[in-house]
Amino acid sequence: MEKSPKNPFPAPGSKYELETGSVLSPRFSADGLITAVTVAAADNAVLMVAHMNAEALQLTLDTGIAHYWSRSRGEIWKKGETSGNRQAVREISIDCDQDAVVLKVETAGNGANCHTGRRSCFYRIIEKTGTGGASLAFDKNDQPRFDPDESDVQED
Amino acid sequence: MEKSPKNPFPAPGSKYELETGSVLSPRFSADGLITAVTVAAADNAVLMVAHMNAEALQLTLDTGIAHYWSRSRGEIWKKGETSGNRQAVREISIDCDQDAVVLKVETAGNGANCHTGRRSCFYRIIEKTGTGGASLAFDKNDQPRFDPDESDVQED
Repeated sequence: MEKSPKNPFPAPGSKYELETGSVLSPRFSADGLITAVTVAAADNAVLMVAHMNAEALQLTLDTGIAHYWSRSRGEIWKKGETSGNRQAVREISIDCDQDAVVLKVETAGNGANCHTGRRSCFYRIIEKTGTGGASLAFDKNDQPRFDPDESDVQED
Repeated sequence: MEKSPKNPFPAPGSKYELETGSVLSPRFSADGLITAVTVAAADNAVLMVAHMNAEALQLTLDTGIAHYWSRSRGEIWKKGETSGNRQAVREISIDCDQDAVVLKVETAGNGANCHTGRRSCFYRIIEKTGTGGASLAFDKNDQPRFDPDESDVQED
């Protein structure tokens, strides 16, 4: 696989190299993306799931501020650019087959990471109902920190 | 969108309904998948990132044991079926646009969740090198709990 001009990472090697080596060689999908799971450095709470292309990953490594790829807008997404809720990256780890990363972040501003104004995008818990179905219960501890209708906060 | 026989969930509604409602209506991708992030119930550590189709999500809800969709094998993947390291699901949350879930689990057996034998798939940290590049440093606290060459543990 040839590297694109914006992919500075070496092409993935063998399964053995991918899993046991010390070379960062992300396995970008056919769409050029890896999965990024963003957690709070303070308590490991999962804040959001997004995607990165090679440029977003390199920008994140270079600046220490989380950058993603917005699939809806088709552009680099510097999280917090409009809201001020930038994510300072304290650590990035990568998984066995190098197609997913975990970012441990500290979020600036009011600490919201979800475009709905909440700290986390995972603000609803799936609960089983008596009839074999399921419904969603809101996490009462994660109230919106701003009114999304009054803001121009970007989403994925 | 019509429901397939194996998708018991109602079709996603409007953006407003998806984000503010209490109806579980996962937005499966064109491949029929959502992203599943599995974390340890004990300390929120991210253990793995995998995928679920509607059947895997329903099986997980019905049984309380994590089921995924294996993209490599093209089949339902009851995690721990061969290793004994089943994941008992304590809580599932879903994100704002309902295309990703977080599973909080307790892992049976020796507690390995990665096919390499480690507790977590995220056993390497990305470190910047002096030359502007990056390399991977192993997490010394996550040593393999079995020899993957001696096991038949399945991977994604």
